[in-house]
Amino acid sequence: MTAFLDLPADTAFGLDNLPYGVFSTQDDPSHRVGVRIGEHVLDLAYLETHGLIAAPEAGRAPVFHGTLNAFMALGKPSWDAVRGRLQDLLSADGPDDLRGSETHREAAFTPLAEVAMHLPATIGDYTDFYSSRQHATNVGTMFRGPENALMPNWLHLPVGYHGRASSVVVSGTDIVRPKGQQKPEDAPPVFGPSKLLDIELELGFFVGPGNDLGDAISIDDARDQIFGFVLVNDWSARDIQKWEYVPLGPFLGKNFATSISPWVVPSAALDPFRVAGEAQDESEGNPEPLAYLQQSGNRSLDIALEVHLETEAMRNDGTAPEVVSRSNAKYLYWSPEQQLAHHTVNGCNARPGDLMASGTISGETEDSYGSFLELTWRGSKPLAMPSGESRKFLADGDRVVLTGVAERDGTRIGFGEVEGTVVPAR
Amino acid sequence: MTAFLDLPADTAFGLDNLPYGVFSTQDDPSHRVGVRIGEHVLDLAYLETHGLIAAPEAGRAPVFHGTLNAFMALGKPSWDAVRGRLQDLLSADGPDDLRGSETHREAAFTPLAEVAMHLPATIGDYTDFYSSRQHATNVGTMFRGPENALMPNWLHLPVGYHGRASSVVVSGTDIVRPKGQQKPEDAPPVFGPSKLLDIELELGFFVGPGNDLGDAISIDDARDQIFGFVLVNDWSARDIQKWEYVPLGPFLGKNFATSISPWVVPSAALDPFRVAGEAQDESEGNPEPLAYLQQSGNRSLDIALEVHLETEAMRNDGTAPEVVSRSNAKYLYWSPEQQLAHHTVNGCNARPGDLMASGTISGETEDSYGSFLELTWRGSKPLAMPSGESRKFLADGDRVVLTGVAERDGTRIGFGEVEGTVVPAR
Repeated sequence: MTAFLDLPADTAFGLDNLPYGVFSTQDDPSHRVGVRIGEHVLDLAYLETHGLIAAPEAGRAPVFHGTLNAFMALGKPSWDAVRGRLQDLLSADGPDDLRGSETHREAAFTPLAEVAMHLPATIGDYTDFYSSRQHATNVGTMFRGPENALMPNWLHLPVGYHGRASSVVVSGTDIVRPKGQQKPEDAPPVFGPSKLLDIELELGFFVGPGNDLGDAISIDDARDQIFGFVLVNDWSARDIQKWEYVPLGPFLGKNFATSISPWVVPSAALDPFRVAGEAQDESEGNPEPLAYLQQSGNRSLDIALEVHLETEAMRNDGTAPEVVSRSNAKYLYWSPEQQLAHHTVNGCNARPGDLMASGTISGETEDSYGSFLELTWRGSKPLAMPSGESRKFLADGDRVVLTGVAERDGTRIGFGEVEGTVVPAR
Repeated sequence: MTAFLDLPADTAFGLDNLPYGVFSTQDDPSHRVGVRIGEHVLDLAYLETHGLIAAPEAGRAPVFHGTLNAFMALGKPSWDAVRGRLQDLLSADGPDDLRGSETHREAAFTPLAEVAMHLPATIGDYTDFYSSRQHATNVGTMFRGPENALMPNWLHLPVGYHGRASSVVVSGTDIVRPKGQQKPEDAPPVFGPSKLLDIELELGFFVGPGNDLGDAISIDDARDQIFGFVLVNDWSARDIQKWEYVPLGPFLGKNFATSISPWVVPSAALDPFRVAGEAQDESEGNPEPLAYLQQSGNRSLDIALEVHLETEAMRNDGTAPEVVSRSNAKYLYWSPEQQLAHHTVNGCNARPGDLMASGTISGETEDSYGSFLELTWRGSKPLAMPSGESRKFLADGDRVVLTGVAERDGTRIGFGEVEGTVVPAR
């Protein structure tokens, strides 16, 4: 499959990817759905209006205007049909409806550099899981010692909690340093800007049609319910979090901002990157999950993830951002399907556009941890920057960029990036 | 102030109340905003369409069609103006625009019995606090003993967590018994319908205009940001909750359903029912809160609350529901304004229609506790029902009704009720 556009051979945004996003342009500030192909955005609202694509089951209602929620709601048969049609339209040897019309080509393609990206969906609810065993072990070890690192429930269910939907922001949004209560060891709490501002490297997914309240999504149906994936940076204020989180969980330490990448990589694009994941049975000394969580086939996704840090001094010097961690989504113990089946097994309803994130993804080695809390081991091992600076946690002016790419047999599926710069507390 | 309608002298839905809700009728299934007056609903969408009311600052956009979000977003000056206009229109001695027109009267009023009520707003985010000292003490005593009942942070900040917005339902919605993991004392977890289904008696409020991400709502501005109040039943599965909640807080033990009363009592209607609340200073042995939480004036609301239980056998016998608890919103230690100031102090953005609930409201005596967990002290003191049955937690077929009314100097402000019936697990 070759695109009729001139793309580099190793592009991570070729016909095998085609991620969806919501964009606007200076000429047309309306929000509409696009797909990224190479360094261009293809306007699906334009194609829809001009009869070049139509989502089956949508009837006459426009699907690609505003947000992705309407398309997410249609379900996998529609997703597959639209994806197939787009691959055809963009192929060098496909139908020439788009390829053959200069008018359509000029109207439908916009260079990536000329678009503004927005949140891909109206997010009804945002849920954050805690599905990396190494991350849970690291945090548990720091706070409770190595013997009690994993809580008793951790290997039996995907631990998760409700996040804040209002403060999910698209990549590029500045992150205002949060203020809040911090508790010195032997003194009453004090109020001020967080001193322990951190990131969490996560993979998130958007829910498709969802389920009615009172019903559940079975583990076998879960895969077809997942529209696609984004990178997530779940910014965290460790000092605020530590004082507030017992007994009801993280709150103000998290809900000041969660950044996501603008391009939603379709589930179908990631199918070739499924890998087994750690066995959830006695063969690796793990308890077998209860039946509703037992997943057949390959459970994990092989997606290389990186954390890049650029301080203000580095930016001013023109020093490239430093890669401070290299992780991979395959390190997750609980899969997206298990997360979704668990979330709904009690009858909780998921809706199109709901966002669910994995929790911090940490590998087994120190250079693969997904948070500064772990990378600097609570600040005890500062990271040396090329600028001569060091970092325990984030300073004002620091810019963090998370990237993701799946790669196999010459095919590359890119996530692009989610980035944000820390600005001083107000 | 006397209404031109024929209302009983002791009505809890007179001109001093005028709660807002969203309703539809068999003739007109569109959702629209109404106010309850006595046993009638006044259609504000009709009044708006016919030029009898207009929300200042709304421009020409319709405000009273669909949900209350648009009206909530306008802010207190608009709320006050509309409320004043409605009181005038409904007064026996006010302008005769409505009173004097049989056409308008017939079109604008519908008997309460003939309307279907819906969720009053599209709820972007739902947050649940934990603001009753007695409730936190009771739960803490059961799980950690009386010496460590209150966590160290509890008197310094309004502990809260994110709930699930998708499963907030309007009064009258059946509650499907949730299934989930439960952990026997010395055996692996098992899966099945919850055996410890419970309620939580709470007071909730809807946020008005809200704040931008990165900004905060000050304690002095918080009161004008609160549109109005509803009763909340935060259904809880104690067995699911107990196994899952460490370390990230309640999740599936809560998110299967949260019921709210359909009528939003305006903040202005409750102003006369402000009372001091427990002193937050050394005079009562409490730590003084940090400055951003220090609230001047009366902090608490004197609203009598009741929990009614009707088993299936009682319903079949025609036995009236039994009042199993009599509590009061004035028992809350942290006020709605403190909750909102705390929630946003880190820059977290609140949006019009966000719902924030108080947490279970328990008084000091055993008959004023707001959950079966407390009323039966973990099931050790079953409640005797008039049918000869007993209850530790809820059985299938049980119907729970929460009611609320503020009463002073002959004025009564009713909340109506929030009710739900437990149906078997699917």
